[in-house]
Formats: sequence, C-alpha cells, structure tokens
Amino acid sequence: MSDPDSTQATDSLRERALTEEVIGSFAGASSPRNRAVLASLVRHLHAFIREVRLSDEEWRAGIDFLTRTGRITDERRQEFVLLSDVLGASMMTVAVNQPEDPRVTESTVFGPFFLAESPQIELGGDLGLGAPGQPCFVEGTVRGPEGNAVRGALIEVWGADEEGLYDVQRKGMHTANRGHLFADERGAFCFWSIRPTAYPIPTDGPVGELLRTANRGPMRPAHLHFMISAPGRRTLVTHLFAAGDRYLAKDAVFGVKDSLVVVFNEHPEREAPPGRQVDGPWSSVSYDFVLAPNSS
Amino acid sequence: MSDPDSTQATDSLRERALTEEVIGSFAGASSPRNRAVLASLVRHLHAFIREVRLSDEEWRAGIDFLTRTGRITDERRQEFVLLSDVLGASMMTVAVNQPEDPRVTESTVFGPFFLAESPQIELGGDLGLGAPGQPCFVEGTVRGPEGNAVRGALIEVWGADEEGLYDVQRKGMHTANRGHLFADERGAFCFWSIRPTAYPIPTDGPVGELLRTANRGPMRPAHLHFMISAPGRRTLVTHLFAAGDRYLAKDAVFGVKDSLVVVFNEHPEREAPPGRQVDGPWSSVSYDFVLAPNSS
Repeated sequence: MSDPDSTQATDSLRERALTEEVIGSFAGASSPRNRAVLASLVRHLHAFIREVRLSDEEWRAGIDFLTRTGRITDERRQEFVLLSDVLGASMMTVAVNQPEDPRVTESTVFGPFFLAESPQIELGGDLGLGAPGQPCFVEGTVRGPEGNAVRGALIEVWGADEEGLYDVQRKGMHTANRGHLFADERGAFCFWSIRPTAYPIPTDGPVGELLRTANRGPMRPAHLHFMISAPGRRTLVTHLFAAGDRYLAKDAVFGVKDSLVVVFNEHPEREAPPGRQVDGPWSSVSYDFVLAPNSS
Repeated sequence: MSDPDSTQATDSLRERALTEEVIGSFAGASSPRNRAVLASLVRHLHAFIREVRLSDEEWRAGIDFLTRTGRITDERRQEFVLLSDVLGASMMTVAVNQPEDPRVTESTVFGPFFLAESPQIELGGDLGLGAPGQPCFVEGTVRGPEGNAVRGALIEVWGADEEGLYDVQRKGMHTANRGHLFADERGAFCFWSIRPTAYPIPTDGPVGELLRTANRGPMRPAHLHFMISAPGRRTLVTHLFAAGDRYLAKDAVFGVKDSLVVVFNEHPEREAPPGRQVDGPWSSVSYDFVLAPNSS
C-alpha cells in the first residue's frame, strides 16, 4: 500500500480539482453576479463536505431532510424559510443588507407567516379581526433619516394571537391579526392589534427534528411583524419585541436586536382606550420607524 | 455619519458574532458528530452569505428555488439528488469516501433513478425486459482487493434505454432495464441489458433552469449503473461508461473516472450471442469489480 501521507495529498489534490471543475462549469453564465454567487456557493458547499468528510449515510440523510422539508411546505407553511431562520442564514442575510446609517431602523427576519394579501384597514382601525388576545393600540410614525415624514407609507402588519398561533396556522383559515394601512400626510399611523405573546415555531416538521437533535428550544419572544414600504425608500422588514420577555436572549431564530425591544404599556380596564370600546385591560406601544433611501 | 472603515469593521464583528451565536446554539447536541457537522454547515453557509453579500431578493430566490425543487420531487423524481449532482456535491461526497486502496473499484454518483425494489433475474437472464435498445451482454466478476471471489454478491443494475429514458421517467411505469442478481460461487456474473446511450438529465425543473442560467449542457455520457453489496464489504455504487462517448469530458454531474470507462464491443448479427436469440447486432462488455472490506 502507498504511503498514507502521499495518499492524503493525492486525495486533497483530486478534491480541489473537482471543486475547480464544478466552478468552471458555471463560467459560461451570462451574468457576472450569477457566476460569482454560484462559484462561492460551490466553494463553500464543497469545503463543508471535505471538512466534515461527509459520509454516504449523512449525504442520504441530508437529501431525505430536504425532501421532507419540501413535502411539508405549501401555501400556508414555509419550512425552508424556517430552516433558514434556525440556521441563522436569514439573520445573516439581514445583517449584510442593513443600511450603514445607524439612524435607520434595524431589520430582522421575514419569517414564514407573511401573506401578500391582507385586508386594508383605516387609520385607527382594528386588524385583530377577532383574534384571541388582549387588544393592543399601536401608534407611531414613518420617517426618513433626516426626520422628514414618509407620507402614505404602506404598513403591513402580522402577528400571532395569545395562543401563539398565526391565522394561517389555524384550520379553515379566517384572516386575523393581519392587515395593512397607510401612514397619513405627517407619516403618522395608529391601529389596533393583539398584544403579542411568546410562542414556539412549528416543531412537527424537519426543522423541529433538527432543534430536538440539538437540544434547542423552539421559542420566539413576543413580537409583532412589520413590513413598511414607500416609493424611493428601502423596504423595511422588522419586528417590535416586547420588553421583559423571557426569551429575548434565546430567540430560536436569532432575530432580536436591542433597538427593536420596546415597552408594551399596560392599561387597566377603567382607562378609556383611544377610538374604541374595550372590555377589560388593554395595552399600547409606540414606535417611530426610520426608512433608508432606496440607494443605500 | 461614521467613518466607513470603522462601520465595516463593526459590521464584520457583528456578523462574526452572529455566526458564533448560531454555532453555540448547536452546542447542546448530544452527539459530538452532529455538533461538528452542524457547526461546519453553519460556518460555511454564513461565510457564503457574507462573501457574496447576498441580497434580500437573492435570498428569496433561493427559498423559491428550494421550494420548487421540493414541489417537483416525488417517489419517481428526486430533484434534490439532481441538484446535489450538478453542484458536484454528490461527487465530492463520493471522493471523500473513496477507500484509499487503489485496487478497489472507484465509485461514482448514485443518481436519482435507483429503486429499492427491482425484479430478480437468474445468471445469464435479461433485465432489459423489453426496453428499447440494442441488447448488451454484461459479464464479469466481483472480487476483494486480494483477488478473492466475493461469492453471492448482490448486483443491482439500472440504466436508461436507447431513447435516454429510465423506466421511472415513462408514464404508467413498466419496470425495464432494471433488476438484480447474485454472483455465483466464483464471484462471476453475467446478464443481458441494453447498450447505454448518452442522455440529458431532466431539464423541466429547477435544476434545468440552473443549467440554462449557467449555459451548461444537460448531457451525461452513456453509462450503466451498478450497486454491488455483500456481507463484510463496503457497498460499491458505480457506473460503467462507454468508451468513445462524446460527453465523457463534460458529464453534467462530473461522474466520469478513467477507470470506469470501458469498451462496449460491437457484434454483428451473424455472430451468435451467448444464451439467447437476438435479432440484429448486439454488444458486450466485461468488467471485474473490486469491493473493499467494510472497515476501510
């Protein structure tokens, strides 16, 4: 038999040659950006396989994992987004796209529960739409970095109810705690939603299996989702997290940023809420969102 | 505004901290192997995103690509295997698992068309089962590195027909050019199959789209698939490639190895084939497979 050191050196040369051959196969891509992204993808994918000396069984387990992730994904469940989230790939993408201007509101994960279609509500209206939970009044402004109002910004909002479920997770879907509205001439907005509660991400699929393998918890701290967009502005995808939540330091998807943690004020029943009747206590939160210009 | 250099340095620190946080989240995995594999996966996935500064749109395109790859995958079509194949990930996995002993037959890709169930045929029987194409007589032996016969080795065989299609790709599946048999007491085997022809991998799904983006061809050189297993032996997954094929140097899945390229001999109609009647010309090929012991 040959000398083990020289055998390993030959293996390493062969493995590197394979990586270069595969990268070379993408050299004909018409877009330089595609070439660069595919070359980097291949280089890191191959480096991972070489580094861990991936076994055939592990390769098959990986194919099976992706196949099952595909099988559970449909219009109402996006297990690939969830996988990207728990691997921190979503937050890394957010990180590399964060505008440099520190005055701009920080972004966080998009998550798997957004729907392009949602009911429009008026300023001051209720997008809770009967979702179980404590009514929560949300108000604030949408501004540029210089403090100028972003008039008529589109504000899309979605959140879980007090049982920790989004409307799309319930059978026979009825839209709830989801809607969109437009900021007024001064960039101001207000609406009623549901006070958010901590909840587990779905664990009945491959991602849940991965978390259990790693002895990782599935909980996300209480938060409300926002996507805010306006002509000439970078679209902002973010959350407001509830201060004091016990899972702030161990979000299953690594989404928490200090600047997005806000106090949800509690109001007793006897205190009159703005613009509507509420049976029982309610809460309120206020936040001023700052959008970057489109170019940054 | 802050100094761009120091902003970048801060970004880089934040991004690295995120990677370490995600790797740390897998530290509780009970198996050291799982910890190592997941840490390496996260490190390379994050490095890829940072290196190319992946945009939000590209992240969404990636999620959409995986989602569609999942949607087209079913019991008869495995688009994730095909994706692994065209990215060279399958061949890299093969490379890192190749036994060091150079006498052992080289492995190549498993491919997406294997079925666990296949008809058993007798030695000398025909597993073509009516598939269109020129009859091809295949014979050889299964041995260990020292030349010792591997008696009764299980030989699973599958291949495309002369139209470049596997049975599973045809509607109303009828098993064809697929089967299994056992080597005899001397490790010898022979059977009838179909002479392989070059063919394109399926291009009507996301993988085809990827190849078109890269201006890459979909062709695979003509080959016949083998999986050979026996107690105490490492299972061998390999192909025999037809010498002279025009696609040997540009296999869409990077599977070709010189040691697996063999001459398929052509026989005129007048030459009597072994053990059966054949209308028209036929071909033959011979190969001695060498299996490693299980430990290597």
